[in-house]
Order: sequence, then structure tokens, then C-alpha cells
Amino acid sequence: MPDFSIGVDLGGTNLRIAAVSKDGKLIEKVTLGTKVALGRDHVITEMCDAIRRLTDQYRSSGAFLGVGIGCPGIIDMETGMLRKSANLPGWSDYPVHAEIERRLSARVFLENDANVAALGEKWLGAARDVPNMAMITLGTGIGGAIVLDGKIFHGMNGMAGEFGHVPLEPEGLPCGCGSHGCAERYASATAVMRMAREAVASGQAPGLATAASSDAEFSAQSIYNLAIQGDEDARRIFRHFGKSLGMMMAGLVNVLNLDMFVIGGGVASAWDAFAPTMFEEMRERSLVYAVTAPDDSLGRDEGAAAQVVARTRRKTIVTRALLGSDAGLYGAARLPAQGS
Amino acid sequence: MPDFSIGVDLGGTNLRIAAVSKDGKLIEKVTLGTKVALGRDHVITEMCDAIRRLTDQYRSSGAFLGVGIGCPGIIDMETGMLRKSANLPGWSDYPVHAEIERRLSARVFLENDANVAALGEKWLGAARDVPNMAMITLGTGIGGAIVLDGKIFHGMNGMAGEFGHVPLEPEGLPCGCGSHGCAERYASATAVMRMAREAVASGQAPGLATAASSDAEFSAQSIYNLAIQGDEDARRIFRHFGKSLGMMMAGLVNVLNLDMFVIGGGVASAWDAFAPTMFEEMRERSLVYAVTAPDDSLGRDEGAAAQVVARTRRKTIVTRALLGSDAGLYGAARLPAQGS
Repeated sequence: MPDFSIGVDLGGTNLRIAAVSKDGKLIEKVTLGTKVALGRDHVITEMCDAIRRLTDQYRSSGAFLGVGIGCPGIIDMETGMLRKSANLPGWSDYPVHAEIERRLSARVFLENDANVAALGEKWLGAARDVPNMAMITLGTGIGGAIVLDGKIFHGMNGMAGEFGHVPLEPEGLPCGCGSHGCAERYASATAVMRMAREAVASGQAPGLATAASSDAEFSAQSIYNLAIQGDEDARRIFRHFGKSLGMMMAGLVNVLNLDMFVIGGGVASAWDAFAPTMFEEMRERSLVYAVTAPDDSLGRDEGAAAQVVARTRRKTIVTRALLGSDAGLYGAARLPAQGS
Repeated sequence: MPDFSIGVDLGGTNLRIAAVSKDGKLIEKVTLGTKVALGRDHVITEMCDAIRRLTDQYRSSGAFLGVGIGCPGIIDMETGMLRKSANLPGWSDYPVHAEIERRLSARVFLENDANVAALGEKWLGAARDVPNMAMITLGTGIGGAIVLDGKIFHGMNGMAGEFGHVPLEPEGLPCGCGSHGCAERYASATAVMRMAREAVASGQAPGLATAASSDAEFSAQSIYNLAIQGDEDARRIFRHFGKSLGMMMAGLVNVLNLDMFVIGGGVASAWDAFAPTMFEEMRERSLVYAVTAPDDSLGRDEGAAAQVVARTRRKTIVTRALLGSDAGLYGAARLPAQGS
């Protein structure tokens, strides 16, 4: 067996731990509930026990490279402290990295969950064949991460990739970040729910109104289900979502000119409902995208830039994530192998 | 004398050639008019003659590293062809790089003018102490470039840094790129002139109206002159300019989290008139900026992110370019020393 590392996906609900070989094969995966209520030390003890069991079991057959941990919240990359995490209450200002490294006597790498998901998709998922990519995670908000030359691009202090707060509307909806008109106000599960509530309140969306009152778990997923059943009001919500996402994506393509943008997260499952207007908007709003889109009919006079592209045959690929919730687990396991 | 390289700023009006030492000292600068009307071959011959004279003169005292050329337009980085340049008519699809390399028997590097300007400011200008920066050039449009780890970030095929076409308004003004609501429609010399024309047409801007009718060279500079003389309509134009630029900058900070953003180009001279609203807008629209702004009074509850920043003391600096029109010349000279 080749060398291996341990990847940890430390979420607010699930704690998943996997032994992954250096060439990206899953050796064994352990899924535990994150017993947040029992406190930080309990969770860390469970995590370390599982890691020790896995490393003891496979150490004889290959070198153990270390542990990578992906977790939600703001991580201070220099100290390895989790500064704030809505999903891990009580962990703030705790030296997660140092404590786990001390307990395991192993190299430990701590990283934001959006970043490890991107690294996972780069390593083994949708972006495995391109050097530079960004990942957009559509959930309650919009998560983002940039990978350049196969490594996470942190920016100055780990805050690069805040795509959800790219401004889209000069006088837009207020956002929790203190700004207004941020992308995630228009293209997230929260935005889908807002648009549905507005449609129901208008009295003009009978299908949504029925679902909202009868479905105890009425959610963005319910609205997508209505959309695929042909409900025009639900479909309109996702068309609007796609248009807003496309405007954000056009800006990203214009700024970054990356080989690939991978779209993941729960709401990405509604791809069919929002992707058409997203692509339409990107093509209209980004000449860089229009001339590099993977489609022979470029649809407008593209000039010299398109000639360059046609010759180099390099395309801007915007596609769905492939690894689902495993992306972060694999990405975390990649960190020790990269050594950064 | 240390090793040296030749930097060339090949513009539509001026052709400037400099011998620059490897440690960034100007050895000699030659300024010629670009005799575009006499044709491509004439310009290249003049350029090569000047380069030869400089290299012959200084070769005995230090190794000659090569020639870097910055020029406007779309450059195919793989073939070294200038695909299209509004300022250099008749140069399209001409193998500029190969031809100059053949004539000089020297290593030649060809690069877009916005990129070499950024590299110049990184090497010897405002950004010389930071690894990662972007440059925003405010002229007829908005030029942009990104430098990471001291090197130009090209993206997939040289199109990274199209900041001027970041969308700011969902239903905004049409742009030459085919989109609408692009940043450069609101924050460029062209935008200043448009706003002035609109103010004059409204009949409510007497100062601007007088200047527009009496000043044969009525320009963005004239409007800035009115602004510093206290003309309220002219001042309002630059406040609006700053607000739009700030919205664009907030998006860039959120996506890139760079150490420094350097603002150059002709319109940057109106800094005093637009910077206050730009900073205000950035602070409001970018939590990343708000918590990393170089000001102790952060102005809002910034939470955990600000703690990380406070500890690392890393700040997002937004500042004026220092090298003026020499930035591109120095940046071009830097290319051979970097070898890329």
C-alpha cells in the first residue's frame, strides 16, 4: 500500500474521518456524529481516537503523512486557532491545531471547509485536469475558494474567495456582512426561500402557497421539486437565481480567467433549473467567457481575443462538483501530502 | 555595473526605451515618437537600433539579460503575436516577438501594457514591499493586472485582470464589450465626460456648461480642475465616480484578499476628488476590507475576522501608483530578469 494521510471533515453535524492513500484512493472512512453538545474536548477525543485507530491499522503498510482537518468558520492560519464558527459553538479562540498535534504527535493541517472542498475537487473531482480553479459552494450562503497551481490561494490572511459578498446591486438587499446587494442575497438557499416567500405573499403563486402551507419541511429543495414538476413560479425563482449567479460568475471570470469554476453545495442539485440563465448571463456579461466558452457558436463578434482562444483551445469550464460531501474529506487528506 | 536589461514601452504615441540595472536603477532612457504612420517595420527598426546602441554601450560593464516590451492590445502569450491593438494599427497577427528576437539575437519578452505597469509598481513603486498586488489603471477605460508572488498572473490565456468589465449594475449602461453595467462605464475618463455631458444637458450645471463651451480641450482633467476650484457639480461627478470604483474595489478585495491595490492611470490624478467616496464604499461593501483597512477605528462590529487581522497586523492597502508613466518601462525591464 502506498503512503497515506488522514482527512477529517469536522462539521457541525457530522464528523467524518478517512484514511486516503497518497494517490487518492479511499482506504477507510469513519462517520461519527459531531456531539457538539458534549463539548469540544469530547469531540476532539473521539476524533483523535478514530485517527489513531486508522493510523495504527495502516501504518505497517505505508508511511503516515499527517492529518488534514477541514472545518467551518474563520481560521487564523498562522496560529491554527478557530476564531469563530457558527457550527462549532464553544470552539472560538481554542488552539485546535496545537491541541490535536500534541495529542497525536503527528503533523496537522487545519483549513477552512470551503477551501478543502475546492482542493478535493481539484485533486480527485471535476477539476482534476486543470491547474487553476475556483469553487463556488451554494448553500445557506455562498462559499468560495481559489486553487492556483494545485494549491489553495489564501490571499493576504486567508480571506480570499469571499464570492458570496461580491456586490451585485448598488441598492440591493441588506446582507449580514453589513453591506447590501451581495451575491448570496440572490443566489443561495436563503435567497430561494426569500423569493418563494415573496411569491406566496403576492398571492399569485398557488403551487408555492400550497407547498409552503402543507409541507412541514418546505425548503429550497421543495421549491426545486416544484420547478421540475413544471410549476412556473418555482421555475421563475431559479431562473432569477441563475441570472444573479451568472452576473457574479461573469465578474469572477473577468477578474480571474481561470480554467474551471466548479459549482457545488446543496443548491447545486437544482442545476437544471438555474444553469441555463446562468450561462446566458455569463455569455452576455463576460467577453472573456464568451470567447472561451466551450461552444463553437460564440454568438457574437468576438474579434482578436477569440482568435487567441481558438488557437490555444483553452476553454472556461463551468461545471458541477463531482464529489459531493466527500470533496472536503479528500481535500483535507490532500493537505499533508502537499505539505502546506 | 551590475547586470542590466532593456525595457521598452511601445505606445501608440511614444516609444520609450530604457536600460535598467538588475537592481532597478535607471541607466539610460531614450524617448522617441512612435511613428505609427511610417509603418510597423520602421518602428521596429528604430526600436532595435536604440536597443542595440544601449546594449553595445553598457555590455562591457555588466551582462545583458534581454529585452522586455510592454505594448497595448491583446497578446497571444504562446506565439508572441500582437493579435489586436487599437493604438498600433497594422500590427495585428504580426509575430512581433519572433521578429525582434531575430533582429537582436537576444531574449525578448512581450507583455500587455497593463501587466508591465503592475509589475513595475510591484518591483520599484508603491507595491515594492508586498508579494501580491493588483493594479487598476484609470484611463479611457479601466485596465487591470494581478501580480502574485512578484510575477504577473495571466490566468488561463492572458485575460486575467479585466477589472473594467466587472458588472456593477444589473441593468446598467451598455458597454463596448457587449455587456452592460460594466465598471468602466462608471469609473473612467469616459465616464467622467459622460456625467459632465449629462450635467450640462440638464441645464443645472453652469460651471460645467461654461467650461464645456469655452474650453476647446474640455476633458476629465478640466472637470477635475473645476472640482478642486469648488464647483459642486464637478465634485459630485467625482463622488459618484468614487462610489462606483469603490463598489468594484470591494468585489476585488472580497475575491482576492491581496496585500495591496495600486491605482494609476491619468484619472488617478483626481484622487482627492474620488478617493473619499471610494474608501467609504469599500468599507461598507467589503467586510474583508473593513476589518483589514489601515485605520484603528474600524467603524463597525467586525468580530472574529478583525481579531485575526489585528494579530497578524496585515492591512489591505489601497494607494496611488508612484511611478507614473515609467511603471510600464520598469516593469518591461523586469521581465528578462525574472525569466518569464
